Order: sequence, then C-alpha cells, then structure tokens
Amino acid sequence: MNPKDMSRKELCKDLARLQRAIRSKGIPVLVILEGWENAGKGRMIQELIRDMDPRSFKVQVFDTPTDEEKRKPFLWRFWNRFPKRGDFAFFDRSYYQIFMETHLLKKGLKQDNLKDIYDLEQSLTQDGMLILKFFLVVGKEELIKRHNEVAFNPATAFRITQRDLDQIGHYDAFASLFKQLLKNTTFDFAPWHIVETSDEKKAAVDILRIVHSSLTAALEAEPVPAPAREEIDVPDLLSNIDLSLSIEREEYDRRIDDLQEQAKDLAYILYTRKIPTILVFEGWDAAGKGGAIKRLTREMDPRGYEVVPIAAPTPIEHQYHYLWRFFVHLPKTGHMTIFDRSWYGRLMVERVEGFARPDEWERAYEEINEFEEHLNNWGAIVLKFFIHIDSDTQLERFESREENEDKQYKITDEDWRNREKWSEYEEAINEMLWRTDMSRSPWIIVEGNQKEYARIKVLETFIEAVKKRLKEEDS
Amino acid sequence: MNPKDMSRKELCKDLARLQRAIRSKGIPVLVILEGWENAGKGRMIQELIRDMDPRSFKVQVFDTPTDEEKRKPFLWRFWNRFPKRGDFAFFDRSYYQIFMETHLLKKGLKQDNLKDIYDLEQSLTQDGMLILKFFLVVGKEELIKRHNEVAFNPATAFRITQRDLDQIGHYDAFASLFKQLLKNTTFDFAPWHIVETSDEKKAAVDILRIVHSSLTAALEAEPVPAPAREEIDVPDLLSNIDLSLSIEREEYDRRIDDLQEQAKDLAYILYTRKIPTILVFEGWDAAGKGGAIKRLTREMDPRGYEVVPIAAPTPIEHQYHYLWRFFVHLPKTGHMTIFDRSWYGRLMVERVEGFARPDEWERAYEEINEFEEHLNNWGAIVLKFFIHIDSDTQLERFESREENEDKQYKITDEDWRNREKWSEYEEAINEMLWRTDMSRSPWIIVEGNQKEYARIKVLETFIEAVKKRLKEEDS
Repeated sequence: MNPKDMSRKELCKDLARLQRAIRSKGIPVLVILEGWENAGKGRMIQELIRDMDPRSFKVQVFDTPTDEEKRKPFLWRFWNRFPKRGDFAFFDRSYYQIFMETHLLKKGLKQDNLKDIYDLEQSLTQDGMLILKFFLVVGKEELIKRHNEVAFNPATAFRITQRDLDQIGHYDAFASLFKQLLKNTTFDFAPWHIVETSDEKKAAVDILRIVHSSLTAALEAEPVPAPAREEIDVPDLLSNIDLSLSIEREEYDRRIDDLQEQAKDLAYILYTRKIPTILVFEGWDAAGKGGAIKRLTREMDPRGYEVVPIAAPTPIEHQYHYLWRFFVHLPKTGHMTIFDRSWYGRLMVERVEGFARPDEWERAYEEINEFEEHLNNWGAIVLKFFIHIDSDTQLERFESREENEDKQYKITDEDWRNREKWSEYEEAINEMLWRTDMSRSPWIIVEGNQKEYARIKVLETFIEAVKKRLKEEDS
Repeated sequence: MNPKDMSRKELCKDLARLQRAIRSKGIPVLVILEGWENAGKGRMIQELIRDMDPRSFKVQVFDTPTDEEKRKPFLWRFWNRFPKRGDFAFFDRSYYQIFMETHLLKKGLKQDNLKDIYDLEQSLTQDGMLILKFFLVVGKEELIKRHNEVAFNPATAFRITQRDLDQIGHYDAFASLFKQLLKNTTFDFAPWHIVETSDEKKAAVDILRIVHSSLTAALEAEPVPAPAREEIDVPDLLSNIDLSLSIEREEYDRRIDDLQEQAKDLAYILYTRKIPTILVFEGWDAAGKGGAIKRLTREMDPRGYEVVPIAAPTPIEHQYHYLWRFFVHLPKTGHMTIFDRSWYGRLMVERVEGFARPDEWERAYEEINEFEEHLNNWGAIVLKFFIHIDSDTQLERFESREENEDKQYKITDEDWRNREKWSEYEEAINEMLWRTDMSRSPWIIVEGNQKEYARIKVLETFIEAVKKRLKEEDS
C-alpha cells in the first residue's frame, strides 16, 4: 500500500512492522526533531512512536548542557545517545541547537561547527545509519498564540524559557537564521524535511509518511559497491628510523626524576587552566607502551589522568560506529586520557586481519583526521606516540617474556601470529603514519629498541608540546 | 618476605606483583580513603599506585554531587565507579561523606544510611570484592598548619572549601562525629584502618603494609563453603490465581482510552513533583509483557519514561556485581524506568538453569529486598508485575507465533527449552513472589490468559498506586 493513501492510524500501525524489519536488518535510525520553540516537537514524536515497540527506541531530550557536558567536546553528549544497530533514537533537539542560539543573530553560523556536523552525519550514514531530520515551522501569529496558551496557564507557565521569549521577540531575525541553517546543512545523505505544524494532525501525517517511505527505501536499498581503493604512494617511514639510538643507563638515572617532576608540574598547570589532553600510544607488540606510560605518569596526580587500555571491541561496542567507544572515554577539560592502543586499530589490526572491510578502513583515514580535528577545535592537546622496534628486538622480548614467570601473562599465541604478518603491518603502519599526521595532532615516532631511550623521548616530547601550548596561550 | 621488614620502595614494587596476581584471580579491589580534609588522601593514593600498572586501576574522586547525580539514588554515582573483577579502584572520598556533613554535628548519623552501607559492603564482599577502608586523621594543630599552608599560598588558596573551614572551626565536634562513624561502620568483612598522617612517610608505609598483607591474604584465602540452603515453606501462590478472569472486548474498548489518558496525566504529575518511578515486568515467555507495557505507556510523554529490555548479561556486565547493570539504568527524579525483565532473573532463569550458584541466588532474596528498600528510601515508587499464564495458553501462543510471519521473530528454540522446565520455574517463581513481596515494593500478580484483562489490570494498578502515593504526599 502506498503511504500516500494511508491514514494516520494505518501509518502508525505499519511503522511497527517496519520497526521489526529495521531491527532484523540491524539499521540504526536517528530521527531529529528541530524547529521553533512550541512548534510541536514532543507531540510529533509521540505520534511517531504510538504503535512502536518501546523496547527498541529511545527518546532523547537535549536541553542546555549540564556542567559535566560543558566540560566535554561539543558532540560528546550526542555520541553518548546515538542508537545502536537496529534501534531508533528520537532526538528532541540536537546538535543543531548550536546554530540556533540568540547570540548568533548577529554573528551568523560558525564554520567550524558546520564542518563538524557535515563530517559527523557523513560518517554515521556511511556506517549504515539512517538519519531523518525534521524542522518544524509555524507562522509568527500561531507561535504567539501557542506561547500565550502555555504562559497564561498556571500549570504550564514554568515551562517558558528565555529561548521562547527571544524567538518571539526577534521572529524575523530567527527566521532568517534558520533559513541559513537549513540551506547549509541539507546534505544528500541527510536532507532536512521542513514541516509546517499549524495544523498538527496534518503535520503528523506528513511526518509519518516521510518516515514510512524513508524506512521502506532503506530496507530495500541494495548495498552500494565500494569504490575501488586508489593506491597512493606512501614513503617507507619506518625504514628511516634510527633504531640504534640509545642512552647510557647512568644518564637515564640522572635525568628521569627531573623529567617526571616537570611532567607532573605541567599536568597540574593544564589542570588549573582547564586544558584537556589526549595521548595515544601505539606500537608493535612488546614495544614497551605500558612501560613508557608508567614512566610518564609516575609523579602525576592520579586524580587528573586516566589510562584506558583498548582491546578488541565487545559485542555491544560492535553495535555502534567504531569511534563511539572512544568518544565515551574522552576526558573533561583539565584532565588527561591516555589511550593504550586506540582508534588506530582500525588502520592496523582491523585492516591487516580483515576485521574491517577495505572501504571501511579506507574511509577511516579521513574520519580519524576529522575526529581529531574536533578534539583540537575543542581545545585539546593531542599527541600520538608510535613506539617502533625491529623484528629481532621483538623476538628477544617475546622469548624473555616466556622465560620469566612474572611476565608470561604478557605473551599470547596471538602475539606470535601477529608477528608472522610483520611486513603487512609495516605497510599499514607506514600508511597510517603518513596519512594521519596532522599539525595539531602529530605522530611522534619513538625509537624503541632501547627502552630507556624511548621513555626519555616520550617524556621530553610531552614536556615540550605542553610548554609550547602554554606559551601560545600566553601570547 | 614479611611486609613488616620491607621498605617503602620494596612495598611499592611488590604491590605491582600482587596487582598482577589479583588481576589473574579476578578479584575486584576497592580502596577507600577518607578522613579529615588535608589529611593527605591524594598523597597516600599516589604512594599506593607508584609502581602499579595504570591499565588496571582507576582513581575516583568524589566531590559534591553534580546536578545529575543529585537526581539519582544516593549510591548511584558510587555503583557507577566500582572496580570490575581484577581491577582496583581508589576512592578519594566515598559514600561515607554522607556521614561527615556539617549539619550532622547536631543531628548525628542517619540510621537509614547506615543500613544502606552495611548492606552494600556486605553484598559486594560476598560477591568477592576486597574492600579496604582507610581513615586518615591528624591532630588539630597539624590540621591548622596544613590549612594555612594551602590558604596563604596564592597558587593553592582556591582549593580551600567550606568543608575545610568547618572542620577547623568545630574540630572537637567533628572528631566525635567521626568516632561515631568509625564505630558504626567497622564490619568484620570491611573494617576501618585508622592512620595518623602527621608523619606522611610513616603513614604511607603503614598503609602500604596493610594493603600488602590484605592482598596477600585475599590471594591465599580458600573459598568458604556455602552454608547449606535451608528449605522453607513456600505457599503455591501461582495455583491460586484465577486464570479464567477476562473482560468483554467491548468493555475493553470502552475503558482503555480513558485509563491511558489517566496514566498519562499521573505520569505528568509525577514528573512535576520529581517522584521517580520504577516498574518491573516479569512473566512467562509469551505472557504478554511487551503488549502490556505498550498499552501502559501509549499516551505518556516519551520524554519522561524509558523501557529497558533485559537480556542475559554481556561479558562486560559479568565483570561486575549482578545488580550493577540495573543501578546504571535507574531513572532520575521525576522520570520512569520500565524494566522488561529485571534483576529477578537471578531468582528465575539463573536459578533454574544453574547460571548462578545456589549460595548466590539464595543470597539474592535479601540483596534484592535491600536494593529495593534503597530505592524506596530515595522516594521511588516501585511496582513489580508478574504476568501469569498457564502452560496451555503458552503453547497456543507459541504455535500461533510460529504460524504468523510477522511474529516469528518472537519465538526461539530457547523458548521451547524453557517450557520443558515449567514445574521448576513454578517453584522458583513461587519462592520469588513469596520472599520479595515488600509493602513498599509489592508484587502484582496479573492474570494473563486473556491479554485484554491483563492490560487493564496493569493500567488500573499503576493508576491506583500513583494516586495513593500522591495522596500520602498531600496529607
């Protein structure tokens, strides 16, 4: 039956059927409701869910961010509430609020944020999410009428906010701001549907029809064949690393305490200035990531940093975009998160072992650059350490681990298997280092054959980068 | 080597070894640091972690609760941060803060909270957690000296809080409050260690030694054989349910809209009065839980409730106490969480299928009663619906599901297997209904052979319970 010929009631009922199909096909569906205050976002959501199974949808209301949310990157609270595969999320307000604030009437839209949101929705839809965006509009007179109904009823008057008053007071200016917003954020993969809601029943039917046909289309869509990967020239960065670098044990002992003391003091300054820091540690198995992290944090106040070890994604994590689990762990301002392995798994183990499809990991170079850009725009220091060792050194360390009872837990069959793919990993690592080295979130390749050298280099690099940043802030 | 003969440095190093053993044995370790302000909690934690692997401990700082945390049950933010099996959590301040507030100097400790905490620590230790509690004390003069060092240094003066000032201003009164606290919350399974910190180095060694020997003891401990289960007389509640109850379709149609409208209005009143609501739905497979939930919530504002379907615990959830995953989902004040299956799985499927050991599910009756009491003390309405059907009705519904293409997804092999254990489930359900029916969180047995009857009864019960509660509040 064509949705055009269906009544509101029939549409509602049929949505329940589509919901089950969406569930079994594992498509995550995000429905965004935006628009004028009192335009009926809540009521439209209620129409949509009337016959849906409440076990696989969630309604998420976004108001002014809480204090905790204000200390996270702007997109954090939305990432936390995206639907998992097969589920629906209805967003009552969304990240588009950042374009709808009163102070923008004069300044216009922020380009940074436009790019963040384009990147976000592109990345989510490429990952299979269906995004439906509705912008609810009402004429000025109707808006005033609705406002008065709420404001002059003692039972509801408390719901009036400054936002309501602003929109009524500056209706035309807001109308033009919204027009600009809609024009700039209608993407092929996630267009806006503008719905007039002065007749609420009609508006509900309009929205139900659009949702109905979008779901049907998504269910019938054939998977788009991935574009062939373009081979690019990647320099052999790893071969140019001088792995003979080392320092005397005596020098190490002389310098380490002082460097740790400096790192501690700088971490404290970052804390007082509310600058967030994100450190990534990658490297071959047995490269010494854990030891380097331990030496770096040794004197720091443990209340200010967190070390997050990353293993293979759990079944739940697989239900989301692969960046989801990292977003959730981001520090708040003034704090530091140290990732022991990270989102770069996508470009190494997932690529080499085939856990991600070629089009998925190919896409990830750009996604990761965008993700880190978002962190930089938020104000974060981002440093990425790759600890490099050669194959002989790895073998030596594996063997010594097997001999040492205290360290046996560190070595697994998987480590031996990965070792056999050394050259494939080399290729992947070279490409990763080459394509994701950004000026504001650089890779630091650490010569790791001698552990003491590596530990000192990590400390020195951290200290230098933080000092540089503090100097920039002061000037 | 005896920890008494070990130096601070040796103790630190050896803790790293013990940490690995704890990890491989899967023991969760909670270390609580409490005491006077400026008594050195942070510094003591830093001593403890000096040589530990940062990948398997977390330091959790608890200050004044955030706005979100204030809208959750008192213990919620602590449950969120307990260590998983094999990990350490260091709590810098803890739930004991509730006994240390200035306004208690006059009123003394609250008995409700004492019981909550006794229950909590007992339940966690029975689940295998090692809880180490340190209370740091300093004399009045030393406290004033330390306070002045912080207060008169411009770089640190901002850290002085009202709490510091209160403790100095009322030193003796606080000393007596703390004495009362320590006396009341030293339990066999989780005693306090009182540590004098005027000499910080000595204090650190004291704490390191206690941690060292406690970990060693925990690693060497033999599992205590569970006490034999005492058989108790349980009435056959299910047999007394009149499953022939039904209503005419016509009556159903006439009444359902009005009841849904009432339920909606009451949910809105709960929202405005900030009363949290927790509904539990249990019942046989195909009893009609999903349908009853859908009818109950149909007209409610979806921004005010959330339906949480509970499946078997994931590997991550298994790493925690079984109540952990439910705590995380509790609503905030004014909101409603509807659990479609719940913590009662412990007493049904986990008991019957042997997923929990007999001593584990035997303990759970009391744990669950305590958990719900905590919810009641917080102010929550708690209603638990058990939808009962007979075996023939289940068979009919299974068969009709298999025939109906739209409903096939609802029926699995597991459903058929569970059916074979009908009488074992009956026994478990009778005992559950009998032993966990509390006046403030009652079981409502719903006659479910006719779906219409069940749906009306759920709606009516909800309406009545909410009205009763509102009346109590008003009087």
